[in-house]
Amino acid sequence: MAVCTVYTAQSLNSISTPKTHLGFNQRQVIFYTNTKRKSANSKRSGTEISCLAQKTVVIGLAADSGCGKSTFMRRLTSVFGGAAEPPKGGNPDSNTLISDTTTVICLDDYHSLDRTGRKEKGVTALDPRANDFDLMYEQVKAIKDGVAVDKPIYNHVSGLLDPPELIKPPKILVIEGLHPMYDARVRDLLDFSIYLDISNEVKFAWKIQRDMAERGHSLESIKASIEARKPDFDAYIDPQKQYADVVIEVLPTQLISDDNEGKVLRVRLIMKEGVKYFSPVYLFDEGSTINWIPCGRKLTCSYPGIKFAYGPDTFYGNEVSVLEMDGQFDRLDELIYVESHLSNISTKFYGEITQQMLKHSDFPGSSNGTGLFQTIVGLKIRDLYEQIVAVRAAAPVAASKA
Amino acid sequence: MAVCTVYTAQSLNSISTPKTHLGFNQRQVIFYTNTKRKSANSKRSGTEISCLAQKTVVIGLAADSGCGKSTFMRRLTSVFGGAAEPPKGGNPDSNTLISDTTTVICLDDYHSLDRTGRKEKGVTALDPRANDFDLMYEQVKAIKDGVAVDKPIYNHVSGLLDPPELIKPPKILVIEGLHPMYDARVRDLLDFSIYLDISNEVKFAWKIQRDMAERGHSLESIKASIEARKPDFDAYIDPQKQYADVVIEVLPTQLISDDNEGKVLRVRLIMKEGVKYFSPVYLFDEGSTINWIPCGRKLTCSYPGIKFAYGPDTFYGNEVSVLEMDGQFDRLDELIYVESHLSNISTKFYGEITQQMLKHSDFPGSSNGTGLFQTIVGLKIRDLYEQIVAVRAAAPVAASKA
Repeated sequence: MAVCTVYTAQSLNSISTPKTHLGFNQRQVIFYTNTKRKSANSKRSGTEISCLAQKTVVIGLAADSGCGKSTFMRRLTSVFGGAAEPPKGGNPDSNTLISDTTTVICLDDYHSLDRTGRKEKGVTALDPRANDFDLMYEQVKAIKDGVAVDKPIYNHVSGLLDPPELIKPPKILVIEGLHPMYDARVRDLLDFSIYLDISNEVKFAWKIQRDMAERGHSLESIKASIEARKPDFDAYIDPQKQYADVVIEVLPTQLISDDNEGKVLRVRLIMKEGVKYFSPVYLFDEGSTINWIPCGRKLTCSYPGIKFAYGPDTFYGNEVSVLEMDGQFDRLDELIYVESHLSNISTKFYGEITQQMLKHSDFPGSSNGTGLFQTIVGLKIRDLYEQIVAVRAAAPVAASKA
Repeated sequence: MAVCTVYTAQSLNSISTPKTHLGFNQRQVIFYTNTKRKSANSKRSGTEISCLAQKTVVIGLAADSGCGKSTFMRRLTSVFGGAAEPPKGGNPDSNTLISDTTTVICLDDYHSLDRTGRKEKGVTALDPRANDFDLMYEQVKAIKDGVAVDKPIYNHVSGLLDPPELIKPPKILVIEGLHPMYDARVRDLLDFSIYLDISNEVKFAWKIQRDMAERGHSLESIKASIEARKPDFDAYIDPQKQYADVVIEVLPTQLISDDNEGKVLRVRLIMKEGVKYFSPVYLFDEGSTINWIPCGRKLTCSYPGIKFAYGPDTFYGNEVSVLEMDGQFDRLDELIYVESHLSNISTKFYGEITQQMLKHSDFPGSSNGTGLFQTIVGLKIRDLYEQIVAVRAAAPVAASKA
């Protein structure tokens, strides 16, 4: 049984009544705070909350806007069995999604400048000067320590900062947005980090699809908007890749020469080696280099087929394993066939990936590597979470036996 | 128990006394004949020898001279556990090799023209007109039917036809030489056939190594000799590939650009699909297309490394599976690592291929795909032989139970 030690927290302004917690055979005390702590230097003197078994696991997900973060989040939440919804009775423009296990907060909520402010100062939302990293760090740390926070809301509709909403410490907190790994203090709070890396070609194809076909923008305006974002993107967003435990790279297919439709994709899952509680997925033979075209005698695929690659590599000086999928699934049998040949996928039963993909076949990317790898990363996060909980639960037992 | 039915054979000139046979719990009658039957039309009226369980299994091995047939034969014999030796007390220039299980005869013994005769008529040994296919067919058929034959001997030293030697029916008869699949009647007698296909580049590199370095021939004479053989080789030997159940193709490496030393080899094992008692070897996933570089995190290889490929293909209109190895083994751990990832290799215990390769590490090709694939083909032949024997032994039992 895990032991929960609670110290008096002099600096916390509001403490709720103790209540028992779901899933653990012990009493748990949850602290809520209703004030924002603005500075990283505000020390909570005499405060110590050490309730290891319930400490929130924090996941960072970095990506440009409009790059499928919300789909990823819905896949992740689904792996844990629940559906994610905005906080009940709150701001209808809240960016937060809450499920039984997971709370996803959008880091846009830590914009220090609203739309008008950014225009006046001539900075983009990508610029660190438009974001409050001190508050981000304070609040993520508080949640990780089991303390609820009043998080601001950036209203994407109005472009204004709305009144804050209460975020209670969940089992898993996902911070998604432009800068989850930008600030070293926030980065150090992450138990696992993911970077969704959409190549410029694919980004462009997607934007044309969405902004030109659906919203009537001109090709020139789309190009101009991408070009305008590029310098800040390259300066502040892209470098976070190097810190990510997993990078999902989305590239144009190599199966069709000169393809620029962005419909058939080559997706690479770059997995850092030596990450605690995370063992990279592999194909056939761990650590060797493999190309695999599953379509053949046992599996027939339609044009342009499916091609996998796997092997060791280095990425920003780190040792990584890379799993790559080019092409797309047409039918269930292709998906289950591929799943059955992957190892270390952290499924709980045979075919769990296929089941998850089928369940959400309407989500973007369900027929290609983005959906497959997002689902796999979801399973790896579940596995990581369960390992952390198991280790924390076992630690006091081991200590009491010693 | 298998049943052995023996009919009186009026046309057989000499019949030995019946004797019991090794390995089977039954009486066996062995017929020896001491006359040569020269024509395919000589009918043995009233003769029928049906002793299914002991019928000789016949294997054909085609290759150009000096292309490693004898090494292959030594590897094959070793798989069956015995050592192959020339017939005891016979012609010291006999081309035959006999072991407990296997008798290997060289088809050069069926030359109808000796060296002088070929010179006079202006035909090469590759030309069917220099070979007696009627006699070849008659004798192979007789052996297959359990009848001993007096096989001529072509003396490679003198270039003359020597007096015949007695060949008793073995468990496995291997006919190796230039034309085992040339004559349709002989071909139909084969239970399994192999074609050793050495590419011209490699053949040239080998001949330079052997004939120039070791025998002092000039580069020009080597080139001339290869060129002189080429038209007949292309006309009569090469086309036999299409009939082979297995082709071992030996090519220059692709791991070193512009390599022409012929030391590092790329070897392809082309295995026909749908051959009775033979299931092709595969790598990781049967029927799909795979490239595998085993050298990586778990296995480190020296330059230029090792690369495997596997996949379905067609070969002369037949569906085949191709397993390819480029590069060479430096150490035992590389070999056992590769063996452990191959399937359908018909080994009787883990590491049998590696054990066989180590046992004969002094044989040519022991560090590359020629040795590996020859060993694998040896194991497949053992498996094929055992399946045939088992089916024949089971057949009468099933009949008696019906």
